[in-house]
Amino acid sequence: MKKYGFGVDIGGTTCKIGLFETSGKLLSKWEIPTDTQEAGRNILPDIASSLRQKMEEESISAEELEGIGIGLPGPVDGNGLVPMCVNLGWKDMDVPKEMQSLMEGVPVKAGNDANVAALGEMWQGGGKGCQNLVMVTLGTGVGGGIIIHGQIVAGANGAGGEIGHITVNPHEPIPCNCGRKGCLEQYASATGITRLARERLAQEHPDSLLDREEEISAKSVFDAYKRQDGVAQEIVSKFAGILGNALSNIACVADPEVFVIGGGVSKAGAPLLEAVEERYQAAAFPSCQDTKFALASLGNDAGIYGSVKMVLD
Amino acid sequence: MKKYGFGVDIGGTTCKIGLFETSGKLLSKWEIPTDTQEAGRNILPDIASSLRQKMEEESISAEELEGIGIGLPGPVDGNGLVPMCVNLGWKDMDVPKEMQSLMEGVPVKAGNDANVAALGEMWQGGGKGCQNLVMVTLGTGVGGGIIIHGQIVAGANGAGGEIGHITVNPHEPIPCNCGRKGCLEQYASATGITRLARERLAQEHPDSLLDREEEISAKSVFDAYKRQDGVAQEIVSKFAGILGNALSNIACVADPEVFVIGGGVSKAGAPLLEAVEERYQAAAFPSCQDTKFALASLGNDAGIYGSVKMVLD
Repeated sequence: MKKYGFGVDIGGTTCKIGLFETSGKLLSKWEIPTDTQEAGRNILPDIASSLRQKMEEESISAEELEGIGIGLPGPVDGNGLVPMCVNLGWKDMDVPKEMQSLMEGVPVKAGNDANVAALGEMWQGGGKGCQNLVMVTLGTGVGGGIIIHGQIVAGANGAGGEIGHITVNPHEPIPCNCGRKGCLEQYASATGITRLARERLAQEHPDSLLDREEEISAKSVFDAYKRQDGVAQEIVSKFAGILGNALSNIACVADPEVFVIGGGVSKAGAPLLEAVEERYQAAAFPSCQDTKFALASLGNDAGIYGSVKMVLD
Repeated sequence: MKKYGFGVDIGGTTCKIGLFETSGKLLSKWEIPTDTQEAGRNILPDIASSLRQKMEEESISAEELEGIGIGLPGPVDGNGLVPMCVNLGWKDMDVPKEMQSLMEGVPVKAGNDANVAALGEMWQGGGKGCQNLVMVTLGTGVGGGIIIHGQIVAGANGAGGEIGHITVNPHEPIPCNCGRKGCLEQYASATGITRLARERLAQEHPDSLLDREEEISAKSVFDAYKRQDGVAQEIVSKFAGILGNALSNIACVADPEVFVIGGGVSKAGAPLLEAVEERYQAAAFPSCQDTKFALASLGNDAGIYGSVKMVLD
């Protein structure tokens, strides 16, 4: 194994980049803007010149690089091919081939950002020491990443780990962003929790701290929950029940060692984790009832950790 | 790769055994009784003497054996350890260690029978050519096996692929064999389909071929379905809707290339496959709508094929 590797996490506005020792130590990290003009043709060249600049600064040669891993916000097949990435403007982009030609043939791998974050959390985060985990990212939407035998489950159509689109309520009248109705994401994301809260507060209810909020958010719900607010307890119970049930079904498929919960909503911390775990245990298949729950610990760095890990395997 | 391998599928009453060329050719197969007396202590020695006898007959030496794969009806961890197997009377059985000591150190691997059958169908059956598949076995219960990157997903608790215990109806009043309520198995197994039929026939209904049956079975439902019986169409529609929805949720986790449908109920053939596929497509996440469906093609031999395949990887 060579000494260094780069992890790159391409987002719609910035690219996060990390220089790692292959032992897992993050030596430095920085960001560059993502230039999505002209069908995103400058994105990889911009990253390449930033990497070369860093290599020059640190006197690192291409021969000392184990490889470059790249996570990006769209479906990626097992060979690093991106059929379409709306956020970056890409179509039929062969990421490893393009990047390798810009970087003197250094090995390159690419993966979907949610899957890559899961790999990062397995390597150096909330799932450290595990080879089989399911990561659940509770943000604006609900994302997911599945790691089996230490490897990302990309899926035949790049939909491996798309757990936000598991149908949890066939009777839902309002459509999800995906066009279907009743997806997990409609209840367990920040947006979903806010909606559950608004719906509850629109009904008759006891006095609640939430009545004093100008704008209800997932954060205000969990803040009130931590202060034993009854209405917030009802809302969190509904959220935790829906998510716990969905995870119990995922356990009947992938049976992971640990569920790692990340994303903005997970900043609510241990009380959120405990609420979901309790409902999971009540719903789970007997042999899976003791599956561990952990908070993601790498935050926004999960992507650069997971990206570089791809090239170390 | 050496020339030969044995695949063994241990059941509660008989053990099926196959002698294979490692190319995938089944040279001969036979059965011996499973002796479950005395906590099943004779099962592995009986198999070993049957294998040695076959090797003598065919003049095959231990040096020509790539290995012995063993499938069995219970949870098996990634190292072939069986914490408990009620059907065989085993507790804390280290199958590879025991069997290797009986067979001059020939490599041995063990796996759960449903998972092993899925591997067999991937190798030489309905999923041939795929590396990622989900097998659904519709029998007395609903079993499953998940293959990712060509490998069995055993799961942290041996519950990988336990898709029969996905909760599909939280309002079900009657308990499943697992103690929980509303499992897929309660609707999509032979027993489940029979129950759906009995429930429908107990209500007011148009004249039906099923009224003339002395005993309703999944087979009689599908026979009537193939003759365009209206009540049978309603029952199959309900079954296919429940199974199709569950598979669409599984696709959001594992996103396989193909769903392989096996087990006794699958003898209904193409009409069953088409009914389930249609409901799957209507429910699936957009990028997974074209996932293939195939019938299992190895029948009762899937276990011996999958068992030997384990030792070839």
